[in-house]
Amino acid sequence: MAELIQPRTLKGFRDYLPALMLPREHLLEQARRVYRSYGFAPIDTPALEYAEILRGKAGEESDKLIYQFTDHGGRDVALRFDLTVPFARFAAQYIGQLGTPFKRYHMGPVWRGENTGHGRYREFWQCDFDTIGTTSNAADIEAALVIHDLMRALGFERFEIRINNRLVLNGLLEQFGLANQVVPLLRALDKLPKIGAEAVMAEMAEKAGVTRAQAERILALAQTHGDNREILDRLQREFGDNPRAADGIARLRELVAVVHDAGVPDERIRLDLSIARGLDYYTGTIYETFLTDKPDIGSVCSGGRYDNLASLYTKQVLPGVGASLGLDRLLAAMEEMNLLPKAKTPAPVLIVQFAAEHLGAYQSMARRLRGEGIGVEVYPEAKKVGPQLKYAESRGFRIALIAGPDEFAQGMWQVKDLARREQINVLDSEVAAAVRKLLSTI
Amino acid sequence: MAELIQPRTLKGFRDYLPALMLPREHLLEQARRVYRSYGFAPIDTPALEYAEILRGKAGEESDKLIYQFTDHGGRDVALRFDLTVPFARFAAQYIGQLGTPFKRYHMGPVWRGENTGHGRYREFWQCDFDTIGTTSNAADIEAALVIHDLMRALGFERFEIRINNRLVLNGLLEQFGLANQVVPLLRALDKLPKIGAEAVMAEMAEKAGVTRAQAERILALAQTHGDNREILDRLQREFGDNPRAADGIARLRELVAVVHDAGVPDERIRLDLSIARGLDYYTGTIYETFLTDKPDIGSVCSGGRYDNLASLYTKQVLPGVGASLGLDRLLAAMEEMNLLPKAKTPAPVLIVQFAAEHLGAYQSMARRLRGEGIGVEVYPEAKKVGPQLKYAESRGFRIALIAGPDEFAQGMWQVKDLARREQINVLDSEVAAAVRKLLSTI
Repeated sequence: MAELIQPRTLKGFRDYLPALMLPREHLLEQARRVYRSYGFAPIDTPALEYAEILRGKAGEESDKLIYQFTDHGGRDVALRFDLTVPFARFAAQYIGQLGTPFKRYHMGPVWRGENTGHGRYREFWQCDFDTIGTTSNAADIEAALVIHDLMRALGFERFEIRINNRLVLNGLLEQFGLANQVVPLLRALDKLPKIGAEAVMAEMAEKAGVTRAQAERILALAQTHGDNREILDRLQREFGDNPRAADGIARLRELVAVVHDAGVPDERIRLDLSIARGLDYYTGTIYETFLTDKPDIGSVCSGGRYDNLASLYTKQVLPGVGASLGLDRLLAAMEEMNLLPKAKTPAPVLIVQFAAEHLGAYQSMARRLRGEGIGVEVYPEAKKVGPQLKYAESRGFRIALIAGPDEFAQGMWQVKDLARREQINVLDSEVAAAVRKLLSTI
Repeated sequence: MAELIQPRTLKGFRDYLPALMLPREHLLEQARRVYRSYGFAPIDTPALEYAEILRGKAGEESDKLIYQFTDHGGRDVALRFDLTVPFARFAAQYIGQLGTPFKRYHMGPVWRGENTGHGRYREFWQCDFDTIGTTSNAADIEAALVIHDLMRALGFERFEIRINNRLVLNGLLEQFGLANQVVPLLRALDKLPKIGAEAVMAEMAEKAGVTRAQAERILALAQTHGDNREILDRLQREFGDNPRAADGIARLRELVAVVHDAGVPDERIRLDLSIARGLDYYTGTIYETFLTDKPDIGSVCSGGRYDNLASLYTKQVLPGVGASLGLDRLLAAMEEMNLLPKAKTPAPVLIVQFAAEHLGAYQSMARRLRGEGIGVEVYPEAKKVGPQLKYAESRGFRIALIAGPDEFAQGMWQVKDLARREQINVLDSEVAAAVRKLLSTI
């Protein structure tokens, strides 16, 4: 006998067993449903692309991040490391055909050869949505609504969407006479949650050459907390004269008002002038989303407005706004938080195979129930009832149906509630109703 | 300005635009629903695995097929080229934890660097289902039912599931004294649809050394057509003495009977002794599925029973049965057959943005409708109604909702049927009911 190959996965990659895959499919389905409910249409792009397209203007440091190789045809190819770059390429290629505004969602795996650990894997799913071809603030506002409805659909009650607008900070740095130091200042500010205020101010002094007083003022502004409308009023008073800041403030004000009108509880939206993610990319509204009970996993849904999606691939200017849900990170967090259901089967009903000669009757009943939308497994082997019920319990089935010669003679079925360990006998024609009733009460 | 990178995909790869992605998602959803309805549970495995695991005992000829490379950690890795090999590795790794019987489905992309053309791509989705850990014929029968319900759920009425059992042909070749020539004979037979009877007989003579008379007899048997039960009766009379053939005949007989009892129309199941796919792998029941109106695309759902799934990775013998739906091939065929719907949006309703100051009211109405399961897009820009309606028609929206100052003053909305170009005015509180009614009649 040949030597066995050791069955194992690569470091940083994981298998999804049913107990984890069932919730992942549920999350994907909810995300799909919410995106669609807002009119975002699905697209897909290949996992493999020309390396030059995926690398874009990424520097050599990203070479370690990207899985790239030469294919049989001598092409330099790479696995996508996010869904944004492929979308930029896609938009450049088809926007004439698709027309604007164009709203898409895209859900799929991406690959990064980076260090692993604590919920970070080298293969993980992203779920992105974007509206491109418009600078209208209505699209920014909608993005906040989508994130909100998405989090609710995923089952979360306690979360906070933090909103910023790059125009505000840019404008007030202009006001301070620091327009040329915006990038190093925001890069320092972005590290606030990780390194703390003192270190941020030190970096501001070192990298942007600002005074201690200036750094303190910027930090104080960025850390302003309180009622969203009060913050906006204060910003308006202090920086409303700067046209850029005024624009950002007005857009934030409209966002806060419309999201409120649309029925989103105020406490789920919080202005946070300190968030500045995607420094070289985002130019307007910025979104981050934190679980109140698990803030340490970081933002689970982030994004923002950008001036130009696809400048590497087309001269057509494509402004847009969107966000990305870190599905697998969220799933890993829910796994840690014990929020995932325990069932390992998607079907609630098991039909016991009492005797092989009745298989036609079992499959006939099963197909009737399936026709009414009830998932049914027929146990594949005719053996003793005990082990079949044990199997049903271990997999998380909720109901077992049993019929042997006696039941068939009377046209009856035993309907067994596996949780309560109770059973009733019902007529063949009433099984579907009995099952439905039981399922609604379990 | 830097030179633009030409936006393009690799040869053999394709993008999915909304008009194609919407049906693909629909097919995936239907497949998921059917698999789940039978109690198959979802799993997922990484796209990238150790090359030695994926290559298994594949010869050098498969090297061209498999995308493989060395990762940053110096590991020889490869992209999966099917879902069966990863499942074998997966089963070897977890079967102790999962228990048997184990029923899983797995839907995802696979990659093959093979020649492209006519609906063949280098990246395509497979949708597999398998029951492992049992030799029971009930699992084989269920696989036929799953394929049937799957094809129906995908929208097909006219299709045929061709069934064979390797035991039958093996047994009758034994009976003919040709037991040692089984592999070259079946390999020749497998080419029947492609090269025709004469060439098959020539190959049988050349590769297996059989006489013309023997080749004719084998071919005549393999090509037996007619009523399933009559074929089985005839086989029983002629080869029932051979234990292997008798076993195969009995299993096919039970399959035909149970599938009939379960309510599948007889004409959708056809015994076909000439199909022998997966020569080195399948050992019992074999399935192929053909569209009556498009047989030339080949089998769209194929599979069979195997004696041992994971012998490369574990000593535990894991018999099983399953099949794989070639989703993207089917989708390409439906595209060619003009069977795909034309809408490019998943949402049926567009709310026209008449004036930006009412955005809160528009999004509020939109969220109410979404809460009732109706997809609604709010046009992102406040501009003239004409272009917004044109956008709605070009994307395939079915209803437009319009409200300006007059309507808001009266608490009314215009509900516009875009297909019939008719509109009614309804009270704010009655919009949902009016939309629902319209959607049910379009």
